[in-house]
Amino acid sequence: MDFPFTRIKGGVGAPQGFLTSAVSCGIKNPEASRPDLALIYSEKPCASAGTFTTNRVKAAPVRVSQSHLRKGELRAIVANSGNANACTGVQGIEDANAMCDAVAVPLRLKRSQIGVSSTGVIGLPMPMTRITPRADELVSKLGPKNGPDVAAAIMTSDTRPKEVAISFDLGEHRVRIGGCVKGAGMISPSMATMLCFITTDANLPGECLRKSVLECVEESFNRITIDGDMSTNDTVMVLANGASGMPPIRRNGKRCRQFREALRWVMLELAKAVVRDGERVTKFVTVNVAGARTYLDAKKVAEAVCKSALVKSSWNGGDPNWGRIIHAVGYSRARIREELVDIHIGGKAACLGGLQAATPMNELRAIVAENEFEIDIQLNQGDASYTMYSSDLSPEYIDFNRSEYAYWKQARKDGLV
Amino acid sequence: MDFPFTRIKGGVGAPQGFLTSAVSCGIKNPEASRPDLALIYSEKPCASAGTFTTNRVKAAPVRVSQSHLRKGELRAIVANSGNANACTGVQGIEDANAMCDAVAVPLRLKRSQIGVSSTGVIGLPMPMTRITPRADELVSKLGPKNGPDVAAAIMTSDTRPKEVAISFDLGEHRVRIGGCVKGAGMISPSMATMLCFITTDANLPGECLRKSVLECVEESFNRITIDGDMSTNDTVMVLANGASGMPPIRRNGKRCRQFREALRWVMLELAKAVVRDGERVTKFVTVNVAGARTYLDAKKVAEAVCKSALVKSSWNGGDPNWGRIIHAVGYSRARIREELVDIHIGGKAACLGGLQAATPMNELRAIVAENEFEIDIQLNQGDASYTMYSSDLSPEYIDFNRSEYAYWKQARKDGLV
Repeated sequence: MDFPFTRIKGGVGAPQGFLTSAVSCGIKNPEASRPDLALIYSEKPCASAGTFTTNRVKAAPVRVSQSHLRKGELRAIVANSGNANACTGVQGIEDANAMCDAVAVPLRLKRSQIGVSSTGVIGLPMPMTRITPRADELVSKLGPKNGPDVAAAIMTSDTRPKEVAISFDLGEHRVRIGGCVKGAGMISPSMATMLCFITTDANLPGECLRKSVLECVEESFNRITIDGDMSTNDTVMVLANGASGMPPIRRNGKRCRQFREALRWVMLELAKAVVRDGERVTKFVTVNVAGARTYLDAKKVAEAVCKSALVKSSWNGGDPNWGRIIHAVGYSRARIREELVDIHIGGKAACLGGLQAATPMNELRAIVAENEFEIDIQLNQGDASYTMYSSDLSPEYIDFNRSEYAYWKQARKDGLV
Repeated sequence: MDFPFTRIKGGVGAPQGFLTSAVSCGIKNPEASRPDLALIYSEKPCASAGTFTTNRVKAAPVRVSQSHLRKGELRAIVANSGNANACTGVQGIEDANAMCDAVAVPLRLKRSQIGVSSTGVIGLPMPMTRITPRADELVSKLGPKNGPDVAAAIMTSDTRPKEVAISFDLGEHRVRIGGCVKGAGMISPSMATMLCFITTDANLPGECLRKSVLECVEESFNRITIDGDMSTNDTVMVLANGASGMPPIRRNGKRCRQFREALRWVMLELAKAVVRDGERVTKFVTVNVAGARTYLDAKKVAEAVCKSALVKSSWNGGDPNWGRIIHAVGYSRARIREELVDIHIGGKAACLGGLQAATPMNELRAIVAENEFEIDIQLNQGDASYTMYSSDLSPEYIDFNRSEYAYWKQARKDGLV
């Protein structure tokens, strides 16, 4: 960021006027005690905005939240891990509505003021008998310091909670942005099995917030990929309640741009955290494509490289294999000319003009042996560029994703299937 | 096939008037003794046709073979494994030409009568000093019974040679088609690291052969996927020398259709063999998509399902996970409606109308535990359909592809890098 900001603690609970809580329902496993149901609540009316999966198969909570967001009165978000409530038909919609009602009643809000999110296995009905009875407790536990509990409650195969909060000055007022995210698998451009909630006490008109969210998501969450799969549940929801006491930001003014810069930083930080905590990931790789004829060509090249199983396998092995990178560049469908392509790994030339460069292999191997490195692909055809954040693909990823049978066995025990 | 044919032995050497041979050059490893250079030669002038990778990064032998095929006088094919001669610039073209010349001279053919193919590592110069000195021996070993040696010499990470040959009647004449293929990694629609050579002693005009090859490749090699990567070297070349003694086939006549049917069968057999022998593959899965609005929609759905790392991981684990299948259907960009989608696994309903079907899980698990099974995806939106052949993705695949460093070390020893 070009203007100063300070990292603070508290995640989504950090901004003024937001209360949060989490409880344990045992949604995936009745014997487990870790929190799996979370609530974010604004004490004041909010501006709200969201972006959702572009998958044509949409989870019930995605459909319900989209409909509620359109009404523009969102004040709270209820979210669970352990079950995605996807491919669950009419029952799924009823269950998502029931989740909203369960918190709306004690909060004295309308159903349409609640956003709802779910993440977990697809195709199994929600074990509602374990969820709704805990709603009152969830509401009664609301407090200003429980932001980290929300980050923990939405985890599935994540190995650690992921949250960030910052404070910064907009004019004469100190404002805060807090966010948390869960990711791990099914991470691909155009959103993923990813739930992200962001709160801020800045004072933004709804239209300004919506535009900022669209733009910042495009430059953060839509630029990460782990396994190339796009989930049915991807959700980013942002609430802005103005509780910092600042006057409303003017649309397209300087403070609007500053806020957007801060929001982008928060989203990019969360997006990168998702890649770093991807399922069985050992490498974080930044792929910069430059010199493309068009933005779309640059994006095609970045996506082809970041999604190639062969490229990702070579990263896992610490192999600076530029041959596999250029072969993915070649099949990306972007307009490229092999003899113009330069590839640098960690700033050192691996391929110049489509041919092997003189950099000693040991130097390139030392770079790819690191946990994080950058790859620069210069197409030398124009001025357009694009950056993506990717990971390796490990044998352990496949192993981890071989079976979700345990979910089914529990659903059978619950009498749901 | 609707008309009778007989499987015969001999692979690409089975048709009349074709001689083949293979020698060992130690291209990848000078100490290894397995054959890695092969030759296919027609005693008579041929009709010829080929299809090649659509990757914009094309290996030198692909460029050279395309140019030679355009002249329409192909009589022989020289092919090596161990080095792809890709991303090797001007030197690569010179080396591919030198490979043609090395066999053209003793065969008394022109350079443009030779097709050339290479497969192996990308980006390293060809160790020509180990190849050209063996060309005379390669030519002197030509014989009618060495077809299987060609299939063996083009193997890279393949675990077994893959070849097929059939004989059948076209009118009153017995004709033969023989073919061999190598595959293993980088297998994706629109061709792969795949070399396929097919010979026939049927008597076809060049135009009829070219049209048949295009159509049959579309319905065979373009419908397989292992890892979703598309290589720089993919090649199918077909030679038809008419040595069976039959009169020329009339274009668009009944015998042309019969020949095409036989060629399609041979190509599909070889394509399926490529999937079955994919790198560390344990499952062969046929995915049938039906009820799509358009052919392109059906194809998009089949490709999304067959390329999803999560779906392929679940197959590896023997998990009949229809939720992951429908989520890939959803992000395929085909026009689908979740509530109309039916998914059958091995003929048993796993998902009906976008919801879990009543089939007991144990029955579905028993099917996916098999080495081969079929998945039927009915979109219930129209009449278009598409079939693809895919595999699982195993932890061993990643492990196997982690590093090609051994290639580089050898190239260093050879003084090539």
